[in-house]
Amino acid sequence: MTVTFAPRPSVLDVEEGLALAPRFPADGLMPCVTTDAADGTVLMLGWMNEQALRLTIETCEAHYFSRTRQAVWHKGATSGLTQTVVRMRIDDDQDAMWLEVTVAGSGASCHVGYRSCFYREVPIGPAAGGPLRFTETERRFDPVAVYGDAPNPTIL
Amino acid sequence: MTVTFAPRPSVLDVEEGLALAPRFPADGLMPCVTTDAADGTVLMLGWMNEQALRLTIETCEAHYFSRTRQAVWHKGATSGLTQTVVRMRIDDDQDAMWLEVTVAGSGASCHVGYRSCFYREVPIGPAAGGPLRFTETERRFDPVAVYGDAPNPTIL
Repeated sequence: MTVTFAPRPSVLDVEEGLALAPRFPADGLMPCVTTDAADGTVLMLGWMNEQALRLTIETCEAHYFSRTRQAVWHKGATSGLTQTVVRMRIDDDQDAMWLEVTVAGSGASCHVGYRSCFYREVPIGPAAGGPLRFTETERRFDPVAVYGDAPNPTIL
Repeated sequence: MTVTFAPRPSVLDVEEGLALAPRFPADGLMPCVTTDAADGTVLMLGWMNEQALRLTIETCEAHYFSRTRQAVWHKGATSGLTQTVVRMRIDDDQDAMWLEVTVAGSGASCHVGYRSCFYREVPIGPAAGGPLRFTETERRFDPVAVYGDAPNPTIL
């Protein structure tokens, strides 16, 4: 079944309706949080344009929009670390997604090689201003071996 | 201790360093995913500017930037449903945050009255194109009683 997006005629329709009526607030992109379906760990925060959202819904494999490459990106196409979507939810005003996924292979989702992109804790409260603390210490894969000399997606 | 943000001289510094060097990619804002510290449920996807990030780090209470009101927003200031931050993590390229929180009062984080903003499931795969399905059915609070006639934050 082809996925179509509904109009957004009213707040009530958007917030309480049963029609998928997404908005892409950041230059045509919406943020997408992806968690591990097994234990709830936040694996990454990605971005989707309309096509990435459609492809994810239709294929049950996570697709994002690469801001660096300015192209739709089938997660795992290079690394083999695909994300199979177990459940997908949209938020109240339909401008953010939540994917619960199962990751293939080593289970990593971060281009640096860690399981989660969120591998550093920020000290808060009395510890505010202190150094970041690594919460993962071992990489699941070697980025150079997997990505070779492909451009690093981190924007300075 | 006052929180200061470090420069971003290299990809290695940003990805593997111990200095907090955030980037705010969406018109001065970064996305922030907030989960329940007890069970990992994604409660909301908010946005932070520099000030919201600083206040969250210093006070251990979640602050966001309201795109509707164009102002920093102490979550729960009106509703009493404050979010105490248990743990805060930043992602690989330091342009997204993850907060694990404990929510006060009824435990709701969604302005519509539900516990999570992500209260509707999007059908995928063979079910693609079908109607959204509510995963929460009971509101935790009455938005009219709590917010009165304050403008609804949903943008059409």
